[in-house]
Formats: sequence, C-alpha cells, structure tokens
Amino acid sequence: MPLLGLLPRRAWAALLSQLLRPPCASCTGAVRCQSQVAEAVLTSQLKAHQEKPNFIIKIPKGTRDLSPQHMVVREKILDLVISCFKRHGAKGMDTPAFELKETLTEKYGEDSGLMYDLKDQGGELLSLRYDLTVPFARYLAMNKVKKMKRYHVGKVWRRESPSIVQGRYREFCQCDFDIAGQFDPMIPDAECLKIMCEILSGLQLGDFLIKVNDRRIVDGMFAACGVPESKFRAICSSIDKLDKMAWKDVRHEMVAKKGLAPEVADRIGDYVQCHGGVSLVEQMFQDPRLSQNKQALEGLEDLKLLFEYLTLFGIAEKISFDLSLARGLDYYTGVIYEAVLLQTPTQAGEEPLNVGSVAAGGRYDGLVGMFDPKGHKVPCVGLSIGVERIFYIVEQRMKTKGEKVRTTETQVFVATPQKNFLQERLKLITELWDAGIKAEMLYKNNPKLLTQLHYCESTGIPLVVIIGEQELKEGIIKIRSVASREEVAIKRENLVAEIQKRLSES
Amino acid sequence: MPLLGLLPRRAWAALLSQLLRPPCASCTGAVRCQSQVAEAVLTSQLKAHQEKPNFIIKIPKGTRDLSPQHMVVREKILDLVISCFKRHGAKGMDTPAFELKETLTEKYGEDSGLMYDLKDQGGELLSLRYDLTVPFARYLAMNKVKKMKRYHVGKVWRRESPSIVQGRYREFCQCDFDIAGQFDPMIPDAECLKIMCEILSGLQLGDFLIKVNDRRIVDGMFAACGVPESKFRAICSSIDKLDKMAWKDVRHEMVAKKGLAPEVADRIGDYVQCHGGVSLVEQMFQDPRLSQNKQALEGLEDLKLLFEYLTLFGIAEKISFDLSLARGLDYYTGVIYEAVLLQTPTQAGEEPLNVGSVAAGGRYDGLVGMFDPKGHKVPCVGLSIGVERIFYIVEQRMKTKGEKVRTTETQVFVATPQKNFLQERLKLITELWDAGIKAEMLYKNNPKLLTQLHYCESTGIPLVVIIGEQELKEGIIKIRSVASREEVAIKRENLVAEIQKRLSES
Repeated sequence: MPLLGLLPRRAWAALLSQLLRPPCASCTGAVRCQSQVAEAVLTSQLKAHQEKPNFIIKIPKGTRDLSPQHMVVREKILDLVISCFKRHGAKGMDTPAFELKETLTEKYGEDSGLMYDLKDQGGELLSLRYDLTVPFARYLAMNKVKKMKRYHVGKVWRRESPSIVQGRYREFCQCDFDIAGQFDPMIPDAECLKIMCEILSGLQLGDFLIKVNDRRIVDGMFAACGVPESKFRAICSSIDKLDKMAWKDVRHEMVAKKGLAPEVADRIGDYVQCHGGVSLVEQMFQDPRLSQNKQALEGLEDLKLLFEYLTLFGIAEKISFDLSLARGLDYYTGVIYEAVLLQTPTQAGEEPLNVGSVAAGGRYDGLVGMFDPKGHKVPCVGLSIGVERIFYIVEQRMKTKGEKVRTTETQVFVATPQKNFLQERLKLITELWDAGIKAEMLYKNNPKLLTQLHYCESTGIPLVVIIGEQELKEGIIKIRSVASREEVAIKRENLVAEIQKRLSES
Repeated sequence: MPLLGLLPRRAWAALLSQLLRPPCASCTGAVRCQSQVAEAVLTSQLKAHQEKPNFIIKIPKGTRDLSPQHMVVREKILDLVISCFKRHGAKGMDTPAFELKETLTEKYGEDSGLMYDLKDQGGELLSLRYDLTVPFARYLAMNKVKKMKRYHVGKVWRRESPSIVQGRYREFCQCDFDIAGQFDPMIPDAECLKIMCEILSGLQLGDFLIKVNDRRIVDGMFAACGVPESKFRAICSSIDKLDKMAWKDVRHEMVAKKGLAPEVADRIGDYVQCHGGVSLVEQMFQDPRLSQNKQALEGLEDLKLLFEYLTLFGIAEKISFDLSLARGLDYYTGVIYEAVLLQTPTQAGEEPLNVGSVAAGGRYDGLVGMFDPKGHKVPCVGLSIGVERIFYIVEQRMKTKGEKVRTTETQVFVATPQKNFLQERLKLITELWDAGIKAEMLYKNNPKLLTQLHYCESTGIPLVVIIGEQELKEGIIKIRSVASREEVAIKRENLVAEIQKRLSES
C-alpha cells in the first residue's frame, strides 16, 4: 500500500467516498468493483496533484520568526526571569518538544486549544507539548522524584486561532517554576507568589495585582450554590472567562449552554463579585453557605495562612482574594493565582495595551499521581510567567518611545583608510579576537574609510581602531571614539590593554 | 468521513486491503460490497482498540529529558559558544520549530534521515525543522535580506535510528553561525574556520584538526575520473562515509550499489587518500586530470586564498586540505569543512571516545535562491557546532574524573536551631532575596538544625545564616561557613553587606 502515504487527506476522503458509494445500475460483479477502485485511485491522484498550489514562501500559520530585535528584548527579559528563579534555588531542566499523545490527553480540560499531533510515521503516536507542567509531572513520576524545585524555559505549541494583535501565537515560550514535594502548608505556595512579585517588579511593567483563590473554595462555592457535581469543571471554565466577558454573558453561557438553573447561576453571581484582602477571607468564614462546606473551609484556612506568610514577605498589599478567579486548567487542586497589570492611564501617543494576565499558577497535587502506576502522589505548586505578553508590552513601549536596540555587541571595528591593507586588518582583528574583544571588519579587500565609519555609526560600535601606511611604519594604531570622533595614537603593543581599559570605563 | 481521523495507520491498511481484495465467489452485486465494507470497518476498529497497550509511562523513542546535571554542563558550553559568535559580531534569531513541509523537501540529499511530519489536522502540511540552515535561507528570502551575520541555537529533529551510545538522539540541539551576503572571496569563509578554532580551543577538548575541501573540487574530481554527472550527488554521499567506513567498503557501495565502473572508482580512490596543507593545493594545480577541469581550478584558487587568510589568523596548522571530505548535504556549493578531535591515547580508566566530527559547515550559494520567486541568490557560508557530541564528551570526562556539579547557585541558607522560628526565617530570607542574594530555607515549620546543615553540605551552599532566640534578642545574626564550620556573629543591619563582601571574595 505505498499509496497510503502519498495521498493527502482530502484525496483520501474523495477516494473513500467513491469506494463506499452505491454501485451504478449497469455494472456487474467483480470487474465493476475493480475498475471502480482503479478509477477512484486515479481521480484522487490527479486531484491531489492539481490541488498542490504553486510554491509560496511563507511560515506556518500562527507562528513567526524572531528577528534580532526581538531576540535582544527576549534575552534581557528571560535573563531577569531566570535569575529570579535561580535566586530561589531552582534547578534547570528540559524535556522533549513532543510527548506520547497519551501523556498529554485528558489533562487540560474542555477549553484547551487543540494539540499539534505528529503524523503516524510508523512509530509511536506523538504530540507537541502543550505546556511545561504536564511534562514536569511525567518526569517526576517516571524518575520517581519525590522532591524538586526546578525551572523550565521552553517553547510550547497550541493550535488556537491566532490573535496576533494581542501577542498570542500558536508557538510560544513559557517560563515555569515549580516546587514538588510534601512540605508544611503554604510555605512553597507563598514563595511562588513572592517570585511573581519579584519578577513583575523587576521588569518595571507598572503596577500589578495578583488575584488569589483556591479550587476547593471554587468547588465549595459551586456545591453551596447548588451546582451538580458533574458540572463543576464546565462551570469552572465559564467562570474563568470573567476577565474577558461580562457577568451577564458568562451567566448566559452557564444557563443556556451548560444547563445550569438560573437561580443557581445568580447565587454564583453574588460570590464572584467579591474580592479583597485577608478581611474577605475572614468574612467568608462567616458566610452561611460556604461555612457549611468542608472543602471550602479547608481552602479558607489555607488562604488565611497564606496571607500571613505574604505579609512576612512584604507583598500582602499586592494580593487580592478574588472569588471570580477559577483558572481553566483541570489539574489544579488548591491555591490558584493570576497576576494582572493594572491599566495606567494612556500616555499621549501610547496605544492602550490590553494584555490580560501576565503570570499565573497554582497547586496541583494530583497530576503526578496520574502518571504513577500505583497512583503515588507528589504535591506540587508552581507558576508560569506569560513572557510572550511581556515581550509584547516591552516591544510596544520601546516602539512608542522610539528606543533603538543594538542587535550586536561588537565593541571594536578594525578599519583602514588605505588600499591593499586587508592582510594588516586580518592580523589586527586576530589580536583582538584572541584577547576576547568583540570585533568586526568589512569583508572587502578595499573598503572606503567613510563606508567603514558609517557601518560603526549605524550598528552602534563604540570604538574604531585604524591602521594605515603611517601607523604600520611607526608601530602605532589609532583609536577613534565613534561618538566623539576623537582619535588618539597608541603603541601597537598597548592596543589590547588600552581597549580593555576604555571598555571597562564605559 | 469522521472515521478517517480515528483509525490508526495499520487499521487503515487492513481496511483498505479488505476493500481492495477480490470478491468472494458466493457474493452478488451491491449487497455484498456494502456488507464487506461494513465488516472491514468493524474489524479495523476492533483491531485498533486491541492494539492500544496499557498505559506505560515513557518518553518518545530517541528523545530524553535533560536533568539539572545535564543542564549545567550545557549552559556552560553554550555560553562559551554563543559568546564566541557574539565576539564575531553575530546577531541572534529564531525560527519556528516547524516549517511548511514544502520548505524542507529536496534540500538535504539522499542520506538524510526522515523528517518528522505533523499530522494533517485540517490546515497546512508541516514538518519539524531538520536543521537551522534551511530555515535561515527561507528567512532571508522571505524578508528579502541580502546581508546578515547571525547565530541560531535551537533544537532540530531527525527520525534516524537513535544510537544513544554515541550521543545521537532524534531531538538535538544545534548551534549555527552563518554569514550571508556578497563579499570579497574567502574572507567570511576564513572567519568561519577561525570561529571553529576559537570554540574548540576554548572548550579544551584536546587536539583537533579541521578538514577542508571544496564542492567544486569534489565535482571536478568526479568529472575528471569519469563519474557520470547524474551520479555526482550519489557518489558524493558515498565518499562522505569515508570517516566511518573503510575505502574498500565505500568502493563496493559505489560499484555494486550505485553502478560506478570499477576503474572510475579506483581513480577516485587515488585522490581521496590525499590530504595535507597548502602544498597539496599547489600540487593539485599540477594534477594532469584536475588541472583540466574549470570547476576544480576555481575551487583550488579559492583554497589557496583561504590558506593565506588562515595563516594571517594564525590557524593554518590546524587545517588540512582533504580530498576525502565530501559532506553529505546537497546544498553546499563551495568550500566545505569538518572538525575532528584527534584521539589522545586513552588515560587509565578513561573509555575511548569515538565521537566523529564536532563541527562542520561550508558555503551554500544557491539555497536562498531556491526560495526566491525570481531565484535571486544570496551567497552564504556558515558552520554548525556539534554541541550534542561535545556535551557527551564533557559529561563522560566529568564522570571519569568523578567531578560533581552543583545544579543550583544558592549562596546562602537561612537556618534556625529553634522551634517556632518560621516567621523570623521568612523575614530574614526576604531581606536576602530583596538584596538579590540567592537564598533557600527548608519548607518546614520546625526543621532540625542538623537537617538544615546537611542540606547545605549536600547541595554545596557555601554560607548559612542562623537566627534563634539569642540572636533575635541581641539584634545579631550568625554567619557560618559550611566548609570551615566557622561561625561569626554580626549585627543584623550589616547582614546583607557582610554576605555580599564574603561572596565577592570567594
């Protein structure tokens, strides 16, 4: 069946529909069947050929190249994020880009985008990873690791409709920090919130707020309001849309699409408007409905302890207990959180940025157990920094301010005003490279001096070293500052030391 | 046709073979055909279901997780490689993990492993990238970039049979540096070789050699020996195996499998034994066959110039003109090169490492034009560092020497000898974090002091700060050096300054 691999899916569908259609009245027995098959195969091949469009050069839908400008911004932001993770004692790790499809299925809930599956090329059924959390849980279970604090920076892939304006792509980078292990309650959870604060403050994105809730409070609230248990996750995912949709639309979805009784929806509506500090936690302990629910009480107890630790960390005023926070993913079991930037009034010339949450996470005590043959659990809590949105914000700000970034780090340019000086330039630049100095020259035998100086100005190289007849004869080199256009002559043997001195001063 | 997506490939094959088999003697017309189809579909579904094994937790064949130990080694090596690329003025960039399948096909030649295709989920036909060179060429053509010096570090995927012993995986990291643009001959090419030397020297992998040849010399040699032009690429890929196979086996492949006349193979055999320095280049100018071939002469002229520049760069003695070097990939058009480590005599206890080439590259002037609608060419030359092999060598050496790596960078541990001191520890660690100090503590309400000190010893944390009743009352903190076990008391307000002083001294 070599054809199997050759026909595109649409051609297959056409072939099959031909094969499965009722036979025409005139045909008889075996011959008819065989010739029909042959005809169907031929038609399909032809169609497959015709369907192939002329080659157009482009990249896959929902993806993009990262230009050197993008990369510079990214590198700075990722450095800050990773150094915070390391400050909190995390180890780095990585997992393959794809996992067995089975590993990923039934982990993400109803509103998850589609996964990218790999083609079955005669081996295992594979899918590109959808986040970094499930691969982490798989790693812990597979290696029987009971305790680990790790960070992971890597690409993930989701086949959502790309909404490029908001900085959402089908391929994007995630930065995760997680603490796995059985510890005393709320200490690691509080550290996750501390890390989110340190990163968001460090990035200077403006004022932010971290909404906190607990899955047990969400579920307790559902139970107390009369949501049937079978609808918990579905209603949870509706509630999760409250940051993008108005309450009346969410209510409509719950009632009309998910079959919730209107009075139940209204009871939920009363709760999800509540948000505040630790005093709201105290208030909810007194709530006639919630206080009857064991799960909800456990969640409230933990939140109370969490706020105590957050106060010691000096970040309590950044945290808001928010009953509308539900988090879409299925695997959360305890505390959940989500950081949002507080919209500052738009500056003149600045476009308003609507970026949603920039960091989020929570506790997922059951996920590792799903991978363990005996169901052994490893409690986990973690966070994910929405770096793509942060890249987008920073890039927009730079654009607005007209800030230019250097995309290279070159410190010194080797130039000559004379012809036939390629050999001397090559010798000179070798000295610089071998001393660890970042240096460039033009790949031309006889470039014009002006071209060489223009190159430095346009790429931001601060220093030029110039060699010519005169310099060669006298054993000197001229050093020119591109900014001030000042030139000084120094002895050739002092060149590297002099450059290093100047670079350390700047 | 919802079934289309549900059946695995083998089930499809079974279904199709049922549909396409000759009808049995007893059946008649329409009814028979329909029931046969239904039976076939059912059988296939059942088979598909039975084929699904019980869930076993594992990762895809040919891939692996990178543990924190791996990551530390990688980070060090990649830092060195990237800082060399930056020293030579390269910009960073990135491309998506997958490309349109069309972008990648017919670029790599006959011996390329299989590409990973993505499943057709109703959109474009996509494949995971196979290297970083073709995406770079696609990027240049798509954005009409005529000149660019860039580096790219990223994962690529190849469905080869994994031979894990040699450090080869189906998912692996590549580090590429390329110079695109029309420049004077051999200046960028020489810089690529200089970069390879700097990186291999910097990594201290032992002595190495870079073999150099030119595709035009290879093709000229083939023409001069009487290889039909249609067989050039096939014979080229045979020659490429000379570093792993003996000449007689390569000769056998060329004659028996690829239909080359034995006397032609023998003529090639004479050439591929030649290697040497610039004197061999001179010698080949006099070669009665090669000197008749225009292409070969062009290649020799360029090599001569290349050696001149390599001498100025001070690396000529590392370079060997080697007529057996052919490079498997189709897209090379000019100079090609490959760096190999020279086997040092095995030390006692050290296993001999057979790692093959650790860096390679060449000139590919036609690739960008393949993507340009009008065929506009952008000449390119570049190199790829075989970092996976280098990771493997470094890890093996560390294992042999029993070297341990720290997988975290934590500088200070916050400990207490007393119960009920969690609050004070949290306050103290906040001070450290907020001062940018890398600090950890145990996530326990009442850990034992010994447990805390053991944690520092096992994870290599150099300093401990200790707070207890006494210290709190006196407004002091004890600082303990884990290595010397010495403790000193300092005023609490001097804590951060004192730690920073100690860390800067160590």
